[in-house]
Amino acid sequence: MPHLLIIGGSDAGVSAALRAQEVNPAWEVTVVVADRYPNYSICGLPFWLGGEVADWRDLAHRKAEDIEGQGIRLLLEHTARAIHPAEKTVTVVDKAGRSQQVLYDSLVIGAGAVPARPPIRGLEQPGVFFLRTMADGFALRDYLEARSPVSAVVVGGGYIGLEMAEALARRGIQVTLVEYLPSVLTTLDPPLGALVGEELNRRGVTVATGVAVEAIDRQGGQLAVIGSGGFRVEADLVLVATGVRPNADLAEAAGVETGRWGAICVSRAMETNVPHVYAAGDCAETYHRLLERDVYMPLGSTAHKQGRVAGENAVGGQAAFAGTLGTQVVKVCDLVAARTGMRDDEAREADFDPLTTQVETWDHKVYYPGAHRLHLRVTGDRRTGRLLGAQIVGHRAAEVSKRVDIFAAALFNEMKVKELNDIDLSYTPPLSTPWDAVQMAAQAWMEGRGNPEVKPC
Amino acid sequence: MPHLLIIGGSDAGVSAALRAQEVNPAWEVTVVVADRYPNYSICGLPFWLGGEVADWRDLAHRKAEDIEGQGIRLLLEHTARAIHPAEKTVTVVDKAGRSQQVLYDSLVIGAGAVPARPPIRGLEQPGVFFLRTMADGFALRDYLEARSPVSAVVVGGGYIGLEMAEALARRGIQVTLVEYLPSVLTTLDPPLGALVGEELNRRGVTVATGVAVEAIDRQGGQLAVIGSGGFRVEADLVLVATGVRPNADLAEAAGVETGRWGAICVSRAMETNVPHVYAAGDCAETYHRLLERDVYMPLGSTAHKQGRVAGENAVGGQAAFAGTLGTQVVKVCDLVAARTGMRDDEAREADFDPLTTQVETWDHKVYYPGAHRLHLRVTGDRRTGRLLGAQIVGHRAAEVSKRVDIFAAALFNEMKVKELNDIDLSYTPPLSTPWDAVQMAAQAWMEGRGNPEVKPC
Repeated sequence: MPHLLIIGGSDAGVSAALRAQEVNPAWEVTVVVADRYPNYSICGLPFWLGGEVADWRDLAHRKAEDIEGQGIRLLLEHTARAIHPAEKTVTVVDKAGRSQQVLYDSLVIGAGAVPARPPIRGLEQPGVFFLRTMADGFALRDYLEARSPVSAVVVGGGYIGLEMAEALARRGIQVTLVEYLPSVLTTLDPPLGALVGEELNRRGVTVATGVAVEAIDRQGGQLAVIGSGGFRVEADLVLVATGVRPNADLAEAAGVETGRWGAICVSRAMETNVPHVYAAGDCAETYHRLLERDVYMPLGSTAHKQGRVAGENAVGGQAAFAGTLGTQVVKVCDLVAARTGMRDDEAREADFDPLTTQVETWDHKVYYPGAHRLHLRVTGDRRTGRLLGAQIVGHRAAEVSKRVDIFAAALFNEMKVKELNDIDLSYTPPLSTPWDAVQMAAQAWMEGRGNPEVKPC
Repeated sequence: MPHLLIIGGSDAGVSAALRAQEVNPAWEVTVVVADRYPNYSICGLPFWLGGEVADWRDLAHRKAEDIEGQGIRLLLEHTARAIHPAEKTVTVVDKAGRSQQVLYDSLVIGAGAVPARPPIRGLEQPGVFFLRTMADGFALRDYLEARSPVSAVVVGGGYIGLEMAEALARRGIQVTLVEYLPSVLTTLDPPLGALVGEELNRRGVTVATGVAVEAIDRQGGQLAVIGSGGFRVEADLVLVATGVRPNADLAEAAGVETGRWGAICVSRAMETNVPHVYAAGDCAETYHRLLERDVYMPLGSTAHKQGRVAGENAVGGQAAFAGTLGTQVVKVCDLVAARTGMRDDEAREADFDPLTTQVETWDHKVYYPGAHRLHLRVTGDRRTGRLLGAQIVGHRAAEVSKRVDIFAAALFNEMKVKELNDIDLSYTPPLSTPWDAVQMAAQAWMEGRGNPEVKPC
């Protein structure tokens, strides 16, 4: 029986395993999982730490028994130490240190990412946390329960930073969020990122932008976060959430090619340069459908898609990864912020002639109770009229994320901004307007394009 | 100054006026409005009658002053009595009966629709209502306030019937909803329509399906609705909501061609067969983008789109109506039911080889509070794999309508079901799953297509 070995039991690895088993049950499938938590939704850790999810066990996308029930073998608490492409084996070590050589016919590397360690002095001390694995989550939970911190600093205003600022505030902790750039959530343009910052303010979180954190000092029982411009905030707890880097050392050591971000280079079939070795998820590069080149954009949704393609191809299939559109969404308190495609600056860099316009409109007819304002930005190419990207911020009940997905579907199909107006979108007063907000934003862009006096915002 | 005359001041007429004024301010624009309520959202009447909207004035999409402020002339409480294409004039009568001949260079007919009057004896008596215009709404409101009815029968389980059943139940009235077909909301397949019927049951509404209403009798102060199979329900109020028919008599009398449903035949430029005469909205046929032929499908969202095209072309533009996809949505109590494209039976009639599959899944990760079940049906062509339609029923907080719009965007672009899986849709645990529900439904369809033993549902 041919053997598919998979390194990594998170989204990419388990997706690969399930898809392989589905398309070609003639293969035996083994997944090497570093901890005891295969297929856990690590995206869910902030909600558990904030108390919205009561039991960490619920974070499992699937239980280990369910995966094994599909005929997939799990090697829990095993670590891959070396890949030997010439022999088609992987050295795997269990938690007692016992080593074995596991033969493979195909190998999928889904080793994920590890937290980026920014150049801040004092990261290695009690009370300073990163958040990536279930173990990281347990360590932070233990500290929260044992120490009952009253104040915290979150370093980094990206998705995890924002979600953890909310989570810690929910626990009654006085939170300061520190961001290096001039606004939080820099995957969106500053005017929309600012709305997210204000939402945190309303929940009692202090947001400090434009601060380069330089050191974390300890004085007695307290930590002090020191940054540029005289920034200094004392806290009982510091969470560093400044992004991730691909976990590709094992692959590199085996001759697997990596790119400028240190992530594994893959074809759209998710093949690496080494025969019979595939890679998927946060350890690998991602093909960007609009930029038509590879980027590093570690996201759970992409890991699932890449894993599915890798798993299918590893057992003889012919699947291709269609590419990312850069779609991302985060809920922060009562706001949702989402984007897809390119921002103005990204489009300009990719040699488009972008115009971005912003409108404020309503999610549904304002006469019907519960209408919320939506802030939408649309980026399109002046020359061709092609849609390049969209960003929306609005209330969590305002269907922001699926509205961004309408833009994503349009981007997938290389639609023009004007054509958005032609789509027969659903309308009923409690849920939308006759021209949906998506179309109001498209119309505003068309006006902006037609009138050179309209200043882009 | 050339003159654009528009008959009808609802969605199509006012959209045409605004667009004409926008693209060619050299034209004078006049709108003949039968009542005093131009551009009112008649779709909103049930929410006002149910008490969710406090003031009927809020139902105005725009105020008359706002429309006039755009340079558009409104002839309120004026009725068009005859169109004379040879002279390019319209006979218009005011409420005092004074007649005038209004010259036009272009004419847009946006005369809307009138309630269908089913063959039921006793429709013409106090306590029996139709609901289409603001005047209909006022009459019903007056009756509700003067008589305080304790019981009502709603005849017809379509959008207005369902919304009015909810509205009357909200007022504490004991409501029976009667539908001729075996389930309510027959724009969706029976398994999904049944969910909507159950939702009304939970709110105390009795739902009687498969009943042909034959007569409305009066006995003393009470009405009695009599139907097939011995159906008899007494009530203080009867609302008949069995659909509409196009208001095209005036056009027909002037030689404007109408089709099999009595609606005005139009090109995709919204031209009629008579030179310089355009039509749009509920009085006209609608080009169906998937069926590639005209249908009669009176909807506010379509009226806006057609009106915009008619208005642009009437003043010299070159716009084309892209066509409907059959997208529709309704909120009934806490449920939302939506569809786009074709159902299985419609696709079969259009010579496709349809397969429809149904799945039940979640709107977001179930570990995060507030997850709701979604019921999705996907129809695709077995031969080509092309997406043909989708239907979703789920909680009002489950982003049902914008999820159907993702399908609509896919249909617009003639995507295959399989390709839905490739779209980079947004993911965060509080709002979605790594494969969105839309994609779970696509995967289920692909499995169904691949396995001839899977029985379509």
